[in-house]
Amino acid sequence: MNCDFSKLSQSELAGVRRELEDRYAEFQARNLKLNMARGKPGAEQLDISDSILESANPKFAADGSDCRNYGVLEGLPEMRKFFGDVLGIDPANIIVGGNSSLNLMYDAMARLMLFGTQGNTPWSRLPKVKFLCPAPGYDRHFAVTEEFGIEMITVPMTEDGPDMDMVEALVKEDDSVKGIWCVPLYSNPEGVVYSDETVTRLASMKCAAADFRIFWDNAYGVHHLYEVVELKDIFAACAEAGNPDRALYFFSTSKITYPGAGVSMVASSAANCAEILKHMTIQTIGHDKLNQLRTLQFLKDADGLRAQMEKQASLLRPKFELVLEILERELAGTGLAQWKKPRGGYFVALDTLDGCAKETVRLAKEAGVVMTGAGATFPYKKDPRDRNIRIAPTFPPLSELAVAMELFCICVKLASVRKLMA
Amino acid sequence: MNCDFSKLSQSELAGVRRELEDRYAEFQARNLKLNMARGKPGAEQLDISDSILESANPKFAADGSDCRNYGVLEGLPEMRKFFGDVLGIDPANIIVGGNSSLNLMYDAMARLMLFGTQGNTPWSRLPKVKFLCPAPGYDRHFAVTEEFGIEMITVPMTEDGPDMDMVEALVKEDDSVKGIWCVPLYSNPEGVVYSDETVTRLASMKCAAADFRIFWDNAYGVHHLYEVVELKDIFAACAEAGNPDRALYFFSTSKITYPGAGVSMVASSAANCAEILKHMTIQTIGHDKLNQLRTLQFLKDADGLRAQMEKQASLLRPKFELVLEILERELAGTGLAQWKKPRGGYFVALDTLDGCAKETVRLAKEAGVVMTGAGATFPYKKDPRDRNIRIAPTFPPLSELAVAMELFCICVKLASVRKLMA
Repeated sequence: MNCDFSKLSQSELAGVRRELEDRYAEFQARNLKLNMARGKPGAEQLDISDSILESANPKFAADGSDCRNYGVLEGLPEMRKFFGDVLGIDPANIIVGGNSSLNLMYDAMARLMLFGTQGNTPWSRLPKVKFLCPAPGYDRHFAVTEEFGIEMITVPMTEDGPDMDMVEALVKEDDSVKGIWCVPLYSNPEGVVYSDETVTRLASMKCAAADFRIFWDNAYGVHHLYEVVELKDIFAACAEAGNPDRALYFFSTSKITYPGAGVSMVASSAANCAEILKHMTIQTIGHDKLNQLRTLQFLKDADGLRAQMEKQASLLRPKFELVLEILERELAGTGLAQWKKPRGGYFVALDTLDGCAKETVRLAKEAGVVMTGAGATFPYKKDPRDRNIRIAPTFPPLSELAVAMELFCICVKLASVRKLMA
Repeated sequence: MNCDFSKLSQSELAGVRRELEDRYAEFQARNLKLNMARGKPGAEQLDISDSILESANPKFAADGSDCRNYGVLEGLPEMRKFFGDVLGIDPANIIVGGNSSLNLMYDAMARLMLFGTQGNTPWSRLPKVKFLCPAPGYDRHFAVTEEFGIEMITVPMTEDGPDMDMVEALVKEDDSVKGIWCVPLYSNPEGVVYSDETVTRLASMKCAAADFRIFWDNAYGVHHLYEVVELKDIFAACAEAGNPDRALYFFSTSKITYPGAGVSMVASSAANCAEILKHMTIQTIGHDKLNQLRTLQFLKDADGLRAQMEKQASLLRPKFELVLEILERELAGTGLAQWKKPRGGYFVALDTLDGCAKETVRLAKEAGVVMTGAGATFPYKKDPRDRNIRIAPTFPPLSELAVAMELFCICVKLASVRKLMA
């Protein structure tokens, strides 16, 4: 049982601090080199897909078309059907990309800037463009937004997704608010699942901007650690509310097969897909269809994908449980940190006392454990309360993860005690 | 021996026309479905790379890095070295892309529009941007230029590349002229090789625009049909002239291994590469490294590539020679058409009498042979003299190519005779 640090006297805190400093010094002496920074799958997660590389790969699509040659811009019919089956999307509204869904998001934003959408003014010609950024969120989303000079407005996350009262208020009057980033299932980094009500409100809210767009990055759409958690259908909700063109839906097999060589997709309304293809046909003759065939040969169908994701989960569960176990053992009841217990996704997010995140991450780094930079989960890398830290448990082996997490908890406590004594 | 049509009387022309119309009708009755529209390799050209698909593919780069996972944005060191060896470029100045060099060109243009380069104003914020388009040229280059609202200025091609007197005059005073498209070796569609003097003048000419850029699409850089033809080093020429940042060099293995699943690259000065990577790191975590390994496992090194290109040439030579033989037999001495005999590349370009290209292509299409659209080789698809037709001999098997070319020559003559009689 841990003690509640807020109840300790200054002299008790001084004693705890000395003890923590000794333990920290022991870790420093071990010259660790551990990394919990990125949501990068571990080698054992890659190994389970290796029949992709070890077996002969097909050349021809089901319709006989030669996948070695140019063409089929929108992606192979079987690949679009696969994504459709897995995600409950009409394959006609799916466009297959290359190996990176981030690239599809970046390009979607670039097109909105340069060309606008559905007859609206290109965003680069407007005096001001703003984007809603639920935070804590995904640093690479914020980097894309910043790249294009779009002003980011931080929206707090709740247990059910972004604070929808605030979102609705922001989009209602101001037509320079052009969109919102969403990781609706197992949000990065907190693992929040958007409630049905949140999805409905996002789809149906009144927006001053006719070209308001939801960037629906369902990166962890099939990445359950335990039971299957369902997400409300954003397209059905948008269509029902009379906003059929509002959502751009992104997904990939990067964290299903190989992070560096998966297959990505973007889905949207028929009108949006036509517009995307109109530009994409100028940009490329087509994406890598052999990799689509290769991926499908391995995953086969929606059932095959489920089996693969169960294997992934069986590899990831022990890591998530270890992280949560050590957090519980070291920090529960101390009043120094709060965290959620995600049922899927790639991260555990932890909130320290206000003003302690940067110092915690600095301490960890100086003892050889690299975390995602404090602040990275907020727009402009500025966490207003300097408290959120993203823990990425997937890459290190279990043994290293245990060491890294023990050190991390010491760092949380040490940073907190010093803060409490300051 | 063909007769010179300009010497025929109206009644002689009428007789020839009837004869041609009969022969044309015979072809129409055959219900042909042949395609000479795109520079698409034939199936036999793809087969010679199939050990790529049939053998186990490697996972790890030479430095041990796991190519299945995220990362290595700039491309594998061995892939950069390979491109460097093949093209005589410093690997440090090479960035590896995905499966499409067109995509790298489009993205380069998009970045110039949105962000500008080396501190200059983004092109999208300028009242007017112009680009020099040597023509006949590559329709997809012109499509990219048009996509971004850039005004295209047609520059005639000579035997040595673009008309450099005109180019120099255009860039000298007008700082809205921001760049030029070049296919310097075996130009699309004429097969022109830029002379050393042309390369030197492009590299050293005085440009009013500090951010003038040469889009150096060396698509056919190793695609010799006969002897190896050398191209002067554009980077050395630019550096020597004090314009180190002027050239963006594009290349890919699309027409070396698989058109749909090759590996692309862009090369430029250190300063330009740093700028490209600064944006690319926001756009993607990295391109498909497994495909880089796969491609290298097959091609091995510069010697391996030469051997592969000799195989390609042995498959393509008979097709080019057949096309030229039929053109010679049917059209030489008629005064109805002119063409060059390319020593490499993917096309034969033919000039009809003024005002006959569209009609020729229409006639061919109505008899079941699809050619590249007349005009496609010019900006805005407008051939001012309506005379240039691109013949793409690579895709059809030899037997089909012979039939298609015979019909094509009939169409050239028929369109010409009707014109001469009009």
